Amino acid sequence: MATTLVRNGTVITASDRYDADIYIEKGVITLIGQGLSLPADTVVDAAGKLVMPGGIDVHTHLDMPLGNTTSSDDFESGTIAAAHGGTTTLIDFAVQERGQGLHPALESWMERAEGKAVIDYGFHMIVCELTDQVEIEMDKMVRDEGVTSFKLFMAYPDRLMVDDATIFRALSRTRENGALICMHAENGSVIDTLVAEALRKGQTAPKYHALTRPTHTESEATGRAIALAEMAGVPIYIVHLSCADALEKVRQARDRGLPAYAETCPQYLFLSSEEYERPGFEGARYVMSPPLREKWHQDVLWKGLATNDLQVVATDHCPFCMDEPPQKQAGKDDFSKIPGGAPGIETRLTLVWDGGVRTGRIDPHRFVEIVSANPARMFGLWPKKGTVAVGSDGDLVLWDPERETTLAASSLHMQVDYSPYEGRVVRGSPAVVLSRGEVLVDHGRLLGRKGRGQYVRRQAGLPMVV
Amino acid sequence: MATTLVRNGTVITASDRYDADIYIEKGVITLIGQGLSLPADTVVDAAGKLVMPGGIDVHTHLDMPLGNTTSSDDFESGTIAAAHGGTTTLIDFAVQERGQGLHPALESWMERAEGKAVIDYGFHMIVCELTDQVEIEMDKMVRDEGVTSFKLFMAYPDRLMVDDATIFRALSRTRENGALICMHAENGSVIDTLVAEALRKGQTAPKYHALTRPTHTESEATGRAIALAEMAGVPIYIVHLSCADALEKVRQARDRGLPAYAETCPQYLFLSSEEYERPGFEGARYVMSPPLREKWHQDVLWKGLATNDLQVVATDHCPFCMDEPPQKQAGKDDFSKIPGGAPGIETRLTLVWDGGVRTGRIDPHRFVEIVSANPARMFGLWPKKGTVAVGSDGDLVLWDPERETTLAASSLHMQVDYSPYEGRVVRGSPAVVLSRGEVLVDHGRLLGRKGRGQYVRRQAGLPMVV
Amino acid sequence: MATTLVRNGTVITASDRYDADIYIEKGVITLIGQGLSLPADTVVDAAGKLVMPGGIDVHTHLDMPLGNTTSSDDFESGTIAAAHGGTTTLIDFAVQERGQGLHPALESWMERAEGKAVIDYGFHMIVCELTDQVEIEMDKMVRDEGVTSFKLFMAYPDRLMVDDATIFRALSRTRENGALICMHAENGSVIDTLVAEALRKGQTAPKYHALTRPTHTESEATGRAIALAEMAGVPIYIVHLSCADALEKVRQARDRGLPAYAETCPQYLFLSSEEYERPGFEGARYVMSPPLREKWHQDVLWKGLATNDLQVVATDHCPFCMDEPPQKQAGKDDFSKIPGGAPGIETRLTLVWDGGVRTGRIDPHRFVEIVSANPARMFGLWPKKGTVAVGSDGDLVLWDPERETTLAASSLHMQVDYSPYEGRVVRGSPAVVLSRGEVLVDHGRLLGRKGRGQYVRRQAGLPMVV
Amino acid sequence: MATTLVRNGTVITASDRYDADIYIEKGVITLIGQGLSLPADTVVDAAGKLVMPGGIDVHTHLDMPLGNTTSSDDFESGTIAAAHGGTTTLIDFAVQERGQGLHPALESWMERAEGKAVIDYGFHMIVCELTDQVEIEMDKMVRDEGVTSFKLFMAYPDRLMVDDATIFRALSRTRENGALICMHAENGSVIDTLVAEALRKGQTAPKYHALTRPTHTESEATGRAIALAEMAGVPIYIVHLSCADALEKVRQARDRGLPAYAETCPQYLFLSSEEYERPGFEGARYVMSPPLREKWHQDVLWKGLATNDLQVVATDHCPFCMDEPPQKQAGKDDFSKIPGGAPGIETRLTLVWDGGVRTGRIDPHRFVEIVSANPARMFGLWPKKGTVAVGSDGDLVLWDPERETTLAASSLHMQVDYSPYEGRVVRGSPAVVLSRGEVLVDHGRLLGRKGRGQYVRRQAGLPMVV
Repeated sequence: MATTLVRNGTVITASDRYDADIYIEKGVITLIGQGLSLPADTVVDAAGKLVMPGGIDVHTHLDMPLGNTTSSDDFESGTIAAAHGGTTTLIDFAVQERGQGLHPALESWMERAEGKAVIDYGFHMIVCELTDQVEIEMDKMVRDEGVTSFKLFMAYPDRLMVDDATIFRALSRTRENGALICMHAENGSVIDTLVAEALRKGQTAPKYHALTRPTHTESEATGRAIALAEMAGVPIYIVHLSCADALEKVRQARDRGLPAYAETCPQYLFLSSEEYERPGFEGARYVMSPPLREKWHQDVLWKGLATNDLQVVATDHCPFCMDEPPQKQAGKDDFSKIPGGAPGIETRLTLVWDGGVRTGRIDPHRFVEIVSANPARMFGLWPKKGTVAVGSDGDLVLWDPERETTLAASSLHMQVDYSPYEGRVVRGSPAVVLSRGEVLVDHGRLLGRKGRGQYVRRQAGLPMVV
Repeated sequence: MATTLVRNGTVITASDRYDADIYIEKGVITLIGQGLSLPADTVVDAAGKLVMPGGIDVHTHLDMPLGNTTSSDDFESGTIAAAHGGTTTLIDFAVQERGQGLHPALESWMERAEGKAVIDYGFHMIVCELTDQVEIEMDKMVRDEGVTSFKLFMAYPDRLMVDDATIFRALSRTRENGALICMHAENGSVIDTLVAEALRKGQTAPKYHALTRPTHTESEATGRAIALAEMAGVPIYIVHLSCADALEKVRQARDRGLPAYAETCPQYLFLSSEEYERPGFEGARYVMSPPLREKWHQDVLWKGLATNDLQVVATDHCPFCMDEPPQKQAGKDDFSKIPGGAPGIETRLTLVWDGGVRTGRIDPHRFVEIVSANPARMFGLWPKKGTVAVGSDGDLVLWDPERETTLAASSLHMQVDYSPYEGRVVRGSPAVVLSRGEVLVDHGRLLGRKGRGQYVRRQAGLPMVV
Repeated sequence: MATTLVRNGTVITASDRYDADIYIEKGVITLIGQGLSLPADTVVDAAGKLVMPGGIDVHTHLDMPLGNTTSSDDFESGTIAAAHGGTTTLIDFAVQERGQGLHPALESWMERAEGKAVIDYGFHMIVCELTDQVEIEMDKMVRDEGVTSFKLFMAYPDRLMVDDATIFRALSRTRENGALICMHAENGSVIDTLVAEALRKGQTAPKYHALTRPTHTESEATGRAIALAEMAGVPIYIVHLSCADALEKVRQARDRGLPAYAETCPQYLFLSSEEYERPGFEGARYVMSPPLREKWHQDVLWKGLATNDLQVVATDHCPFCMDEPPQKQAGKDDFSKIPGGAPGIETRLTLVWDGGVRTGRIDPHRFVEIVSANPARMFGLWPKKGTVAVGSDGDLVLWDPERETTLAASSLHMQVDYSPYEGRVVRGSPAVVLSRGEVLVDHGRLLGRKGRGQYVRRQAGLPMVV
Repeated sequence: MATTLVRNGTVITASDRYDADIYIEKGVITLIGQGLSLPADTVVDAAGKLVMPGGIDVHTHLDMPLGNTTSSDDFESGTIAAAHGGTTTLIDFAVQERGQGLHPALESWMERAEGKAVIDYGFHMIVCELTDQVEIEMDKMVRDEGVTSFKLFMAYPDRLMVDDATIFRALSRTRENGALICMHAENGSVIDTLVAEALRKGQTAPKYHALTRPTHTESEATGRAIALAEMAGVPIYIVHLSCADALEKVRQARDRGLPAYAETCPQYLFLSSEEYERPGFEGARYVMSPPLREKWHQDVLWKGLATNDLQVVATDHCPFCMDEPPQKQAGKDDFSKIPGGAPGIETRLTLVWDGGVRTGRIDPHRFVEIVSANPARMFGLWPKKGTVAVGSDGDLVLWDPERETTLAASSLHMQVDYSPYEGRVVRGSPAVVLSRGEVLVDHGRLLGRKGRGQYVRRQAGLPMVV
């Protein structure tokens, strides 16, 4: 029976802070106390470290096909990078193909992950066609497969977008099966009209990606998604919220007591539309949807995290290389052909700590809440994941709040030839990362083996008002 | 060395829920784990119970002089009643006398409590005259006496009310000494004008107490208090918020990211202005300030508790007898002479559980937060009080969520001849209550001895954004 | 040369009130003064009357085909009824047929009106299919035909509804041609899903018409319409706004300074969803879209008229008989087949005066503004219509503020076998109505001849911020 | 009998625009028509001009004692300057002295104006001490003297400030006498605390005047004033609103349908706190209360004028010389001793036209509304003043929308040695100004004689919702 003892650390959870040792048996925390002197297979010294629940990233796209390419991290490289960054669980997206059901998609993504992942993982299911049969499959996904969340798109008319009737039906279905709908909220009808207009005018550079997706396309869709959820009488979760206008819609709903939730991502907290002004094709690095916004939105999003109008920071990790191989180059002459997405799975915790906790915008408890506890609660992982408590998995990050790092593609572990944060100096990073009691990463050295990560069946039904 | 073992319970904190045993040494939790088999002086079986941090009531008036009478519970009867209700710590108010400093007030209240209290206690200091000397005394109170919060009144012009200049100076002072200002927010100038007008018209019945304190007198003062705090650059805590209009002011401030906090009380969640329509002088039972409001406000307050626009439920326990002795009778012919206040110290937890958790308005974690964790964080008791964690005091309530009680003055322990909730049936109540590891109340039997309660020096500076 | 002298009246315009005589030559006001003693072909005594600009009803459906029936008033009976009620100009809707252009629709509606109308009239154009060709036709309509407003539907998926891309394109087109888009704002996708669900459950009675069109379907669409207009950078006009939720969207937009406008109708100001509880099939009288709402919305709408968040009261006059002929009966067994609409063209002014001016909710100037001046300004009729001023048409209503009437289908002039307001007593009605200086109605006697009404070419571009 | 004919102009009122001639007999408009050919004593050609009602300035301080000096314009120089700028009526403030009643104040100000004023004038009464006797005098002022508005101060603790009880009593009194309370809304308690603190730190330069009066001192007081008016059940009028925060309070009240009104002044629309950074003592030119604000507030105020959240632009004209004589110098070493105020009576119309109408922020009708019609309606001058209509006074300004002027103290007519707008080029100014049919100013030449201005008794009770 494998046992681990983590000694001398300061435990930080969403609500508590105390000095204690933690004893883990068969992957599960069984004892927390002062001065534990128990024999253990592994003893980790956490003196001077903050012992927090491992990060949970509920928005990643590993090994994802897009057009005739694939996001550049697979479940091996992606989860290794995640582990280095202090993330011990992720939820990726399985994508329904039009004309097909949901189970083939789940199987396909299970195969992608199996034997590769070094951390635990689950899947949301992207639904892009909702037949009666698919509605029944949704129930089965929730009940039998532990897939308790579905994602819909209000953008990308010809590929993924579903109409209001479909959204309303899907939302209504969750009233019974207890799943949570995740929404990509951008008005694709308006965007595609603007894109066509721009291309007609010969506006092909990367920056037009941003100019054809104004913030109102996001806020309109956000408001509509919440309204449809309210009419269906169910919660809703807005993914990658990027701007003040959209946040205002969430805030208004929450002020009225509605269960409307939203995540933002580090790119919207740290980067701005100024990046699109870079020379040549460099702006392509930042082509993602929603696009980066004007700088002033950042402060509003941080405030939203502090006031609980935003509950989660996830990454939307979806990397494509600039040159090796030349994935982003597909849109050299037409911004609408640039594969959208950027890397982020490894840098989430360090960025949010540096920009949030060190600046005083949030405290360490709120940090735990937005990068781990809330994602766990909302997506059916809690209390196995997302906290440090007796009975929880021994997924821990021993955080060194003082260690300084300079972010650089060359030293990060993601399989992509650039970093959006190249050269940024951040303070605070994981010293040791454990998954189910096993040391995954020790001061930058990977110890977890490929394939050890397990698929996690998630619970349906939000366990609590967040 | 006294040790206590609490076995087989389900621990509930502000953010966690797990099954575990708890080991307490010298009053402090040292170990939490599965199947602890340690020798202990006292073993308590918590099977089937929820083990939560003891309640903290931050708004009580025990043994308080008012005119030529005194609130009917002293620190003995009051703390015994509190313990029976699951409350293990309270913060009462020491009152500065005009023309005097703060230290005499603190001494006077220390004497009232010493040798009597069965639970731990602290004091806020009511300031009604702010000379330069008193400003200096405030700093000393914070630094040397553990009195880290001060209360000001915007009502009662001739007794307690201070003007905006005084409020602003007091708030500004806390920018340096780290204390928190608690505000009684009612516009006393308007109220006294309305009271004089009513009496001139011969309107002397208890119900005119309510009619001369309309909700806008509270919301105006609430908005002003927050504005003054914003200008001073400090947090503020509104006591006994009673109505939707005032809550809206808090909500708007919080939406803007301001550290504005507010408590409400069970009377505003469960009782309404209909009580003033009772025959004869019976309405006097419900004379308190602010007065009870129209019924629809209750829902808005509950929603405020759920959305975190309200952070605390305290009691404003301040009982006066109707007949034995005839304290309330002082206002038989003039509502303005009725001593204001009602009993509540014993019934807080059971009411909030029954009306909040059992109805689904809040979950058990939020329950812990508003009756224990938040009060502890805001008033400098955390992490000694307000949570169940290694290193915290062994202040625990073993909660029986199913036990049904009928509230009645005759069976409650408060020293007052009526209950505002007489006859109400509630489900959920404390089975066993521990203070620093010692069993205070065991299934309705008092075990804690008079005078065992300790004065708690509190910390200054909010430990976290709430 | 025809001349008319209106003597001794008190003139009321949107902003002025004064005693004066009015001299009209060839239909146009040429002189306003005290004690005018000029020879005139017609002299009308207005002593004791308020002389106001004739009413303008910008939302009517005369002789409108629906399924295999037609609204029961044609341009003769409808305009006669309008004249009796004090309305001297109306704007009806020409409807594009799918697969056809706009010009055939205009011609068809021109024919319907010509030789029949007794008052002046114009047409909005309903667009239900927006090809490139139709976009060009829109410009021609504005430039050459005096059709300067277009209506789109967000409801009725298979008949009239257009998607967001179409709405956005149409709105964008008006940025150049200066037209105004009128929006029927209900989310048809949600509604049709709810309707199908209701029918599946056997819920076929008239009241289910209302229950399947909850207020949020209207507020969502209203918010979306305004968002799309904001993105296109143009004004928008919401027709028949019925509820507080939708009004809130307009209010928020206007607070931000956006040119968002909305009309409500008397039915939403005076009737409520209680009507659907009538026995048998009687509720069918009140089947219209949006449906009648809970009573409390009425106050909010009145307040919106007072605070200028609503700018216009129009009628959506679209009558269908209950029994003779049995038009409404088409939906006897299926509420979704009941032809939607109700009569109102004749009773608008008297209702708004009685419920608005006499109760003090609005003053007589605001009355003029919402029933005449604002419609004229917004729809390109001003300053020919909508005011009493030198150079304006002599369209006048001599209002008797004290005359009491009991509304009854039998005495009203609309060609329909019921009145939604049957038996209601109202005070204030037109004594004499003039159109271009000609007496149309004199104390209930029709003097204007069939066919005298003229088509009015309207101007594009809002003349002023309203 | 004096008659005047104004020919060929384009009349602009709050709601109308038409070409017509205007005939004035004995000072009153009796006829408006096309091509009037009547004999007249005076014929004025208005070809190419906009004929608007004369400006009404409801906030001036002429010949006002302050400390041991007096504002530098008396009723002669001040009204001459007003006339040159197109203003034909003003309302100044009579100031109660503490320990005295209201009538002595009115008499004193009547004397100041009589024999001097060239335009018509009225008085608001400033109340700084409200005894029972003064309450009775308020009624008399309204009923017998035509003084139908009173001003209270929430600032200047030792001179003018009244407490909430006084404000509430005064407001309540207007419920019966129909007067309107005008409020100087700044929290004097906070301001004086900040001023004392600044002086203690040796911060004596003019800019500290602004830094000790932050916007929140204004918005708090504005919100409180409105709340007190709501509780009293009466309208309220906020004078010289200067910032977005305060406007937000007015907006919220108006959204709720409350009769809350506010004026702003040109200085807040055109100047900003940057002026306080001028070298030496020059910032003293801009010392006024409220102080100038950060530039971004200007846009918000303009939007407030467009959306009718602000209803009036007045001047708060209260000039003090910099050097000749050295009035402002009194505060050379202590900003709190600088007499507060700046000149503006002459430049109001041209500035608002240039910055508002020419930029498209407001249209000419709204211009008339905010500089003339609304002031007339609110302060009991309408319909004699504030419009161009039969029966109204012949107070007209013939506006040349194209004429360009460079503002300069040397060419303006105010008796003060600087202009806050020195060097600013504005387009649009009065060509001819008439008061009661008499030409006051003709292309810059003064024709009206000293003392011709009449005291105007004003009506009580707002004539209409604005």
